[in-house]
Amino acid sequence: MPIPDIDHLVGLVARLPGLGPRSARRVVLALLRDPRGKLLPLARALESAAVSVRTCSSCGNLDVEDPCHICRDPARAKDVICVVEGVNDLWALERAGAHRGVYLVLGGVLSALRGVGPADLNVGPLFERLREGAVKEVILALGATVDGATTMYWLQEKIGPYRVEVTRVAQGVPMGGTLDVLDDGTLAAALSARRPV
Amino acid sequence: MPIPDIDHLVGLVARLPGLGPRSARRVVLALLRDPRGKLLPLARALESAAVSVRTCSSCGNLDVEDPCHICRDPARAKDVICVVEGVNDLWALERAGAHRGVYLVLGGVLSALRGVGPADLNVGPLFERLREGAVKEVILALGATVDGATTMYWLQEKIGPYRVEVTRVAQGVPMGGTLDVLDDGTLAAALSARRPV
Repeated sequence: MPIPDIDHLVGLVARLPGLGPRSARRVVLALLRDPRGKLLPLARALESAAVSVRTCSSCGNLDVEDPCHICRDPARAKDVICVVEGVNDLWALERAGAHRGVYLVLGGVLSALRGVGPADLNVGPLFERLREGAVKEVILALGATVDGATTMYWLQEKIGPYRVEVTRVAQGVPMGGTLDVLDDGTLAAALSARRPV
Repeated sequence: MPIPDIDHLVGLVARLPGLGPRSARRVVLALLRDPRGKLLPLARALESAAVSVRTCSSCGNLDVEDPCHICRDPARAKDVICVVEGVNDLWALERAGAHRGVYLVLGGVLSALRGVGPADLNVGPLFERLREGAVKEVILALGATVDGATTMYWLQEKIGPYRVEVTRVAQGVPMGGTLDVLDDGTLAAALSARRPV
């Protein structure tokens, strides 16, 4: 189908995670069949998200305001910081409703293979708060992968001198698994059974 | 995550065919992580498609011009019309490169269960061209489902009086299957082995 507009759209959709050329064509066709009901609302929602969504400077979460709604929430324990790899993990923990403190989104984990070093992780805000003495507990909630374990070990070493409690989510996260695919029950159990490192 | 913009976007994406809440969150997050590289280009491609894409009044195909590029192509045999259920089927046949005539997209098949009657099908352009005597062959390329077979039988009855050749794609389309999930080879074989009804 040498129709540039549709080809271009199918190409963009096919590059999204979990989609390929075949499912992209199906999605695009469903959208084109209902331009007013589906296509335009999606285009506008994307445009508005592009304009309004920003990264929280104090935790790395995505929100329409900075600081994000979690960091601004007066009911949240600001002295209990849960360290996660990505925003997807933060969302998963929020859906489980298991954490009443705040977060720090690293934006990755240390990985020799993929060339991710300490400088690539969003740890500045954490150590700033540690220096201010405003932290009681740091919960390390990274996946039970080799890179996740390495990162937790490295963080534990760096946080050590500040003499705050460092805990990690209980083993319950399956070996080799990542946090954002777990069910809420397992996530809540793993978080409540956390133990000192 | 009570962030209206993101929630709304996830909701819209989750309603697309083949996607659910979980895959929608993954897609939206991938987009939000790269607003300039992924999110805005997709928003603009959708918006431009919504504005430019229209239905071809002579065959029912989707294109940026009306008549579509297939109906305008002087190399296409205008007197050989291939009748398909949907634009997805037309796209599948075009990818297979098996048909050198033009198309008629019905926009559905007769179905007592789903209440689809003859008036709901886009057959007007076909009978107009039949009345003009400008048709040599009508190829019925509908899926080998009960509704597809019913529709082909009904069309064959209606086309009969015009004394043109009516053929159907060879059995090769799996029973109960639809056209757009087939591989190009099977599609090409089924089309070239078509036989008179």
